[in-house]
Amino acid sequence: MIENNQVYLQALGKQAKQASYSLACLNGSQKQGLLKAIAVSLTEQSELIIAANAKDVIAAKANGLNDAMIDRLLLDEVRLKAVIGDIDNVINLTDPVGTELESQLLDNGLRLSRRRVPLGVIGVIYEARPNVTVDIAVLALKTGNAVILRGGKETLQSNLALSEAIRSAITSQGLPADCVQLIQSPDRSLVSGLLKLDNYVDMIVPRGGPNLQRLCAEQATIPVILGGIGICHLYADKDANIEKSLDVIANAKVQRPTVCNALDTTLVHQDIAEVMLPKLYQKLAALGVSFYACDRAEAIAKKLGVTVETATEDTYAQEWLSLTLGIKVVDDIEGAISHIRTYSSGHSEGILTDNIHASAHFINQVDSAAVYVNASTRFTDGGQFGLGAEVAVSTQKLHARGPMGLEALTTYKWIGVGEYTPRS
Amino acid sequence: MIENNQVYLQALGKQAKQASYSLACLNGSQKQGLLKAIAVSLTEQSELIIAANAKDVIAAKANGLNDAMIDRLLLDEVRLKAVIGDIDNVINLTDPVGTELESQLLDNGLRLSRRRVPLGVIGVIYEARPNVTVDIAVLALKTGNAVILRGGKETLQSNLALSEAIRSAITSQGLPADCVQLIQSPDRSLVSGLLKLDNYVDMIVPRGGPNLQRLCAEQATIPVILGGIGICHLYADKDANIEKSLDVIANAKVQRPTVCNALDTTLVHQDIAEVMLPKLYQKLAALGVSFYACDRAEAIAKKLGVTVETATEDTYAQEWLSLTLGIKVVDDIEGAISHIRTYSSGHSEGILTDNIHASAHFINQVDSAAVYVNASTRFTDGGQFGLGAEVAVSTQKLHARGPMGLEALTTYKWIGVGEYTPRS
Repeated sequence: MIENNQVYLQALGKQAKQASYSLACLNGSQKQGLLKAIAVSLTEQSELIIAANAKDVIAAKANGLNDAMIDRLLLDEVRLKAVIGDIDNVINLTDPVGTELESQLLDNGLRLSRRRVPLGVIGVIYEARPNVTVDIAVLALKTGNAVILRGGKETLQSNLALSEAIRSAITSQGLPADCVQLIQSPDRSLVSGLLKLDNYVDMIVPRGGPNLQRLCAEQATIPVILGGIGICHLYADKDANIEKSLDVIANAKVQRPTVCNALDTTLVHQDIAEVMLPKLYQKLAALGVSFYACDRAEAIAKKLGVTVETATEDTYAQEWLSLTLGIKVVDDIEGAISHIRTYSSGHSEGILTDNIHASAHFINQVDSAAVYVNASTRFTDGGQFGLGAEVAVSTQKLHARGPMGLEALTTYKWIGVGEYTPRS
Repeated sequence: MIENNQVYLQALGKQAKQASYSLACLNGSQKQGLLKAIAVSLTEQSELIIAANAKDVIAAKANGLNDAMIDRLLLDEVRLKAVIGDIDNVINLTDPVGTELESQLLDNGLRLSRRRVPLGVIGVIYEARPNVTVDIAVLALKTGNAVILRGGKETLQSNLALSEAIRSAITSQGLPADCVQLIQSPDRSLVSGLLKLDNYVDMIVPRGGPNLQRLCAEQATIPVILGGIGICHLYADKDANIEKSLDVIANAKVQRPTVCNALDTTLVHQDIAEVMLPKLYQKLAALGVSFYACDRAEAIAKKLGVTVETATEDTYAQEWLSLTLGIKVVDDIEGAISHIRTYSSGHSEGILTDNIHASAHFINQVDSAAVYVNASTRFTDGGQFGLGAEVAVSTQKLHARGPMGLEALTTYKWIGVGEYTPRS
C-alpha cells in the first residue's frame, strides 16, 4: 500500500511538472480564456457538483459533525454561484508573469534581465471548505502554475466533482488536464508523501490549523509557506486616545472573530489602565466578549464586578477565533514589545498612540508581517491591501510575508544574452 | 549530552534573536562603522588568527588531508589581508534595509507601505574555507541580521579566532557580541539541532556539497536556501555558429572548472554534430579536458582516434568540478530541453544559436536560475551580475533564485498607519 502510494504520487508529480511546461508557454489572454472556460464548465456542471456536495453533507451528518462544520462544507447553488463569480475577479487581475523586473547591459557585454515566471508546480493542502479547490486552481492557472490539491476528507466528493469540471475545461482549451490534479484518496500517508515530492513540487501551501502547519514544517523537503495562524495584539500606549482606541479594539475583536486577523490580546499601559479598562470591559462585554486578564487587569475587573478568567502563559499563546480576549497591563512600551515577541505568531500587531516616537519604535521593534499604528488588525487581508486575490497569509519571512497575492505564485529567472560571449 | 546540546542551542538562538533586535535599530552609517571596526579588529588580531590557522593546518596534516584540502583551509597573511580588504567592498554597498518598496493610501483610509527589514537571525552551515566566517558575518551585519555560524571541524581554531575578533569589534560599538555566534563544538548532532531551531532562526543557508544540502532539506523546520550545486549545460543548436560556440564551450569548461557555474554537459544538435564534435574534441582535449560521450558522440570520437568514456545516466547527473565534460548528440531542441529537465540542478544552462525562435523557446522552456543565449555559464555569479556581493547561489525558486546579493538577507514588513481606523 505504501509502495503503491509512492508510485501514485510520483506519477502525479511527473504529470504536474509536464503540464506546467505547457502553462509556461501561455500568454495572458490565453490564461484568461482558460479561466473563462472553467467558469463555464463549473456553471454547466452545477447540478453534479451540488449533488456530490449533498453526499458529503449526508456523510458528515452520519459522522456526527457539528452544525458549524457542516455549514463550512456546504456548497449550495448560491454559494457555488459566488465561487464562480469570483473567477471573474481573477480573470481581470493583471498577470504578473513575463514582466521584466530589471534589465541592464553589463560591463562584461551581457544583456542581463530578470523575468517573472511561474513557480512551476504548487501543492496545496487544505481543510473543509470546498471553495478552496476552485480558488486555488484558478489562482495557480492565472499565474501559469500546475497544482496538486489535497482537500479534507469531509469534502472529497465535492472536490472530485469540482476538479473534474475544472479539468474538462482545461482539456477543452487544448491543455493537459493534469494542470490541476486532486489527490483522490483520504489516506493520510499521502500528505507526508506529497511533502517530500521535491523532484516535482516547487512550493507547498498548507491552509489549515496549527497541527497541519507543524506537520508541513517538520516533514516537508519542499519549501513551505507557513501562515494563517494569527495571535494578534493591540497595545494601547500611555499616549493613546482612549475612546478612539476602544473603537479600534472592539472592531478588531468582534467584527469577525473567527478569522486569523482578529484580535487576541490587548496590552494596556499601566498609566491608562485604571481609566481605560473599566470602559473596555463595559464596551466589549456588551458585545458578547469574555476575558482572560492578568492580575492587575483582574483587580480592576473585580472592583467593577466584571467576571474574568485568569490569564496564563497558555491563554496568551492561544489564537482565540472566538469572542474571547486576553488583557494584560504592561509597565511600558518595552513590556508590550516583549510580550508580543514572546506570544505573537508574527501575523498582525498594532500600537494605539498619539506619540510619534512610540509609533516609530513599535514599528521598528515588532517583527510581524503587518504592524499597525492606530488601525485594526482586521486590515491584514489581500482584498484590503489591494492585492486583488489572496492565496494565503504568510507568517514566515522568506519569499512572501503577510497577505500573498498573485506575485507570490511566481519566481524569477535570470536571462543573459550575449554574442557568443565568454567570461573574461 | 544530547540534552546539553539542546540547552546550548536554545541559548544560542535566544541570544541571537535578542541581538537581532539591536541590529534592527541601526542606520546605514552605524552599520558601516561596525564593519570598519571589524576590519580593524581582524587586522589587529592577525597574528593570533594566523597562529590559530596554523594549528588547524597541523591537525589537518596529521589527519592525512590532501594538499588541495589543506590549501583550502590555509589562511596566511596575504589571504587574511584579502579577506579584510573585501570588507571595504561590503561597507560601500548600498544598504537595502529601510527602503519602502511601495506606499499607498488605501480606499479604506489606511496609509499602507511595505518596508524592507532584516530577516532577523540567519544560520549558515559551511565547510572548510575560513574566509566564509568573515564574509557571511559581514554580509549579515551589513543587512542588520544576527548570524549563527557552523563551520567545518577542520577550521575550528581559525573560526574561533576570527569570530572572537569580530565579536570584540561588535562589543566595541556598544552592541551585543551575540550578533555573531560560532557553534564551538564539532559534534554533528548540533547541525541537526540548529536546523530545528525555528523559534529563533529565520533562514538557513547551507554552503557545501550535495550531502549537506540534502541533510538540510530533510531535517530543517526552518526555511532553507538550497544551492551551490551546478549541473550546467550548453546546447549547440543546429543554427549555432560552430567556431564561436566552441570558444564559449571552452570558456565554460576550462576557465575555472572547480566552481558550480562551470559547464558539465554539452548537448549538440545532430545536424551539426559531424562537423562540430571533431573540432570540439580537438580543442578541449588540448586544454586537458576528458570526455563522457553518448553513443553517437563516441562513434565520432572513435573515427578520430579520440578516447572517450561512455556516458551513463549517472555521469549525466554528475557535477564534475573538474576538467571532465559530458557530450550528447540530441535530435533537436526538444531533445536538449528534455535532457536538461532530467539532469539539470536548476543552476545555469545556455543555448548557442543564431536563431531567434530557438532562443526564445529555450529561454521559456528551460527552468533554471540562469538561462543564457550565446554566453558562458560562468557568468552566474554575484560579482558578474553586479550584485556587489554573493551570499550563495540559490537553485530553488522561493525567496531568492540564482546569485543572492544583500537583498536576499532581507524580508519586508507591511506597515499600516491609520487615524484610529476600524475596518468597515
